[in-house]
Amino acid sequence: MEFISSPSNQRIRRVMELSSRARERRREKAFVIEGARLFADTPEDFLLETFVTKEYFEGAEEKIRDRIRRKGGVLVTPELLKKMSDTQTPQGVAAIVRMPEWTMEDLLSGNPLILVLENIQDPGNLGTMVRTAEAAGASGILMSRDTVDLFNPKTVRSTMSGIFRVPALISEDLAASLDLLKERGVTSFAAHLGGEAAYDRLSYTGPSAFLIGNEGKGLTEELSEKADQKLLIPMHGRIESLNAAMAAGILLYEADRQRRNLS
Amino acid sequence: MEFISSPSNQRIRRVMELSSRARERRREKAFVIEGARLFADTPEDFLLETFVTKEYFEGAEEKIRDRIRRKGGVLVTPELLKKMSDTQTPQGVAAIVRMPEWTMEDLLSGNPLILVLENIQDPGNLGTMVRTAEAAGASGILMSRDTVDLFNPKTVRSTMSGIFRVPALISEDLAASLDLLKERGVTSFAAHLGGEAAYDRLSYTGPSAFLIGNEGKGLTEELSEKADQKLLIPMHGRIESLNAAMAAGILLYEADRQRRNLS
Repeated sequence: MEFISSPSNQRIRRVMELSSRARERRREKAFVIEGARLFADTPEDFLLETFVTKEYFEGAEEKIRDRIRRKGGVLVTPELLKKMSDTQTPQGVAAIVRMPEWTMEDLLSGNPLILVLENIQDPGNLGTMVRTAEAAGASGILMSRDTVDLFNPKTVRSTMSGIFRVPALISEDLAASLDLLKERGVTSFAAHLGGEAAYDRLSYTGPSAFLIGNEGKGLTEELSEKADQKLLIPMHGRIESLNAAMAAGILLYEADRQRRNLS
Repeated sequence: MEFISSPSNQRIRRVMELSSRARERRREKAFVIEGARLFADTPEDFLLETFVTKEYFEGAEEKIRDRIRRKGGVLVTPELLKKMSDTQTPQGVAAIVRMPEWTMEDLLSGNPLILVLENIQDPGNLGTMVRTAEAAGASGILMSRDTVDLFNPKTVRSTMSGIFRVPALISEDLAASLDLLKERGVTSFAAHLGGEAAYDRLSYTGPSAFLIGNEGKGLTEELSEKADQKLLIPMHGRIESLNAAMAAGILLYEADRQRRNLS
């Protein structure tokens, strides 16, 4: 395998740029994953280039070593991998992977259960929503353009490899997308502190979309007015709102509960 | 008001120590809060000393200025506050506050709904669980000694001031605490990937406790064997587990849903 030790090497600099810049990621339609677990869980056809330490390579299972050899494996020093990495402990492996590409039809497949996100800003929240959406059986995620980049390293980590499996699209105009969803028979529900109905009194057994807004400000009035229904997650005590990912998870799991109890 | 600009001042160093060291917090039964929102939401009898920038003080409402004067207000420079702070943007105010003190009777009050946490390690997860526990109407949280410190700055922030209202206790022996809960009529449910029953097929309308384990390893066998019932949160796709705070929130809100639908 090729060995690289210089941080100014062209291929190493490409990893750093893809790791730190959303614009580069969009331009190249590629992003960076780190860590043994995520590397093992990445479908092989997404892998473009792999960078490993000698220690990691020698300690890896044979099928992982084969995967590294097939996917442009480059040996780097632990020090260089740490420099290339977004985390303090990159666990011996990083890779450039191509972005999954999805269409609106992917989100609308089966009995749609869609998460519509407006201006979510916390990378960990977004990643947790992808992870939870997969677990709850959601059909996909639709994000406003001003939502934090799905492919930034912290978001990618939080998805627990769900990023390769959950259909996710950016909408340039969420209000227009809601019109489209409506045409396709999807009922939209806005999570709103002024919602009229407790979330567990509504039915999500048909095609459904949940609208979740920014962590501090919630949904814009414009978007929540477009929803077919505003719902409320009841809160005790003096908490003013739930964490955005938590609200999304509670709603998705209520939909899953209703759908399981039907069948 | 007194003005301090030196980072070697005794009172400033105390803030830094309480912010960074769990042992100091335990010894002094005090911790540090930061930020305008959390400061405004802190019940006044918890406040011990307050440190503000001139800009924050002058821009604050009159009742906030009164609170600062009453609670040992010290003026500091923005640079010094940033040094004292755990965040990049401390928003002009930090304070030393006393720890709330709770007993097992607080957790057992009313119709108990208790979160039992074993070895939770992520400060944000723990804080989110406190926030969600308050919102879902839980009666309190019981934590193993090896759970991350509840009073570290990141956890405190994530609670959204729930830290002052949700009864929380450390148990030196969670297994023994489960025996005590059982004696007091509380049924315990372990969230477990090998759980027999889907969580929504069980009843939590009586006194209930949910056991949630470490983010990577889940509950120890010893503890999950002690629970009255192991439950499963069904998962679609290839996600192996939910985020620990998410699992806790889904269970607490299922309990709240059942309890609301009874009344």
